[in-house]
Amino acid sequence: MRTDFNPPTDPAAYPFVHQVRVRFAETDAMGVVHHAAYLPYLEDARVAYLRSVGHPYAAVRDDGMELPVVEVAVRYLRPLRFDDLVQVHLVPASVTGATFQIGYLLATAGQTAATAVTVHGITVGGRPARAPAWLAGLVDGG
Amino acid sequence: MRTDFNPPTDPAAYPFVHQVRVRFAETDAMGVVHHAAYLPYLEDARVAYLRSVGHPYAAVRDDGMELPVVEVAVRYLRPLRFDDLVQVHLVPASVTGATFQIGYLLATAGQTAATAVTVHGITVGGRPARAPAWLAGLVDGG
Amino acid sequence: MRTDFNPPTDPAAYPFVHQVRVRFAETDAMGVVHHAAYLPYLEDARVAYLRSVGHPYAAVRDDGMELPVVEVAVRYLRPLRFDDLVQVHLVPASVTGATFQIGYLLATAGQTAATAVTVHGITVGGRPARAPAWLAGLVDGG
Amino acid sequence: MRTDFNPPTDPAAYPFVHQVRVRFAETDAMGVVHHAAYLPYLEDARVAYLRSVGHPYAAVRDDGMELPVVEVAVRYLRPLRFDDLVQVHLVPASVTGATFQIGYLLATAGQTAATAVTVHGITVGGRPARAPAWLAGLVDGG
Repeated sequence: MRTDFNPPTDPAAYPFVHQVRVRFAETDAMGVVHHAAYLPYLEDARVAYLRSVGHPYAAVRDDGMELPVVEVAVRYLRPLRFDDLVQVHLVPASVTGATFQIGYLLATAGQTAATAVTVHGITVGGRPARAPAWLAGLVDGG
Repeated sequence: MRTDFNPPTDPAAYPFVHQVRVRFAETDAMGVVHHAAYLPYLEDARVAYLRSVGHPYAAVRDDGMELPVVEVAVRYLRPLRFDDLVQVHLVPASVTGATFQIGYLLATAGQTAATAVTVHGITVGGRPARAPAWLAGLVDGG
Repeated sequence: MRTDFNPPTDPAAYPFVHQVRVRFAETDAMGVVHHAAYLPYLEDARVAYLRSVGHPYAAVRDDGMELPVVEVAVRYLRPLRFDDLVQVHLVPASVTGATFQIGYLLATAGQTAATAVTVHGITVGGRPARAPAWLAGLVDGG
Repeated sequence: MRTDFNPPTDPAAYPFVHQVRVRFAETDAMGVVHHAAYLPYLEDARVAYLRSVGHPYAAVRDDGMELPVVEVAVRYLRPLRFDDLVQVHLVPASVTGATFQIGYLLATAGQTAATAVTVHGITVGGRPARAPAWLAGLVDGG
């Protein structure tokens, strides 16, 4: 799969939102959040989302399933700064065979800061596996 | 700009290579390098590349110029592990107005591990600026 | 100053507690939280504490004051794992001239995971400065 | 064990030195290297040291041995900045039962930037174990 999902720019198009507060450790010498620090924000939002739908990632992993990131794309639109409260909006975008796609919109103080897409593999016991029904259902029934 | 560059899969297509060794701190509980840790590898390679062409990034910044990442896309193909020696191949891909694009191929032990593209803004004194001649020349004359 | 504060092992001895949830990005290939990831937890707790006493660190910095870490010591007692909820207990320990000391106790699921001490410098406009009254008062008046 | 080792301030007192270059991602909004970023520098130096004495950490781990950090103490003396070349001097300081201690001196441009001590546990198959002869010998025969 290649990321082919265009994350909506309207927060209302996202069924889930997770909030993070920018840590000082995540800033860089430009005085803003370093671009690599956004990826843990997306991950944090995914983990919170999976918990919210009754499939905590820790439990998923205990079952031998991993959901590794196989592709990521981020567009940085406005800088984030120390202590900002960031809303990470999340939408499950598609499931295709042994991968699925998630879209994100990051906003702070009502302004869009970034959009992103992650593509995930699905492995069980280290081997590619089709999405289980609950995961496929997040998109279909989402 | 949107990333429209397709990083070549042949290392020979890249004019520059920078080597990093995977740190233990960069691994995660899957036993491989965390996907966010690749972004500093790309940055490290850019910094080494700019030094190699006579424009160290520290000097560029002293001149009031910043080259913030405005877009990043990574495809993870094979996991990297602790202590791996990683060749980060780099090619300046295009310059368009106040942005430019760089392509990357990460390889270890002769195997492609990932490809990536970064798009950078160019600012001087905090304002968007056209690429200086030396930067535009990296692509044209590359 | 050298860290001379012995962080209490009883959570009740701490006037403030801040909670963080372990991110997957903070784990390492031993399957536990990497030891370097504890330092941002301490920082996060300090920032929350300063906010709670009416002196948000962002505002402190806007006033030209910095509180750089000049010394840190951590004892790791039990590993932290992905998704753990960690209580970071904090106590302002002492103020001496242009430095102050903070003690920490990290616990998860009722078990002590780590203790720590940070020593901070106080600078205004880049120069060492005595602790302002509000900061000195945090220790004196507890 | 508690850190009881006082790292020498003379680089000549250290039998091993490893060099790292500061990454931009390691800086923070104060314009200097974030204090948490020093811990991976120490780790990097340890890994290089173990390799230099014929016991690469990756091989050590393949044998089921782990050397987790159970205590760390750092004194920050002068800030490190983006692109600085940092010499991380290292000395194995002591071995006591199932732990050992390492001292560090970080310097850049001939100036001491920090000193540090790490205390490590020794586990084999997850259980505390006495230091193997090669490890004990690093201190005795240093």
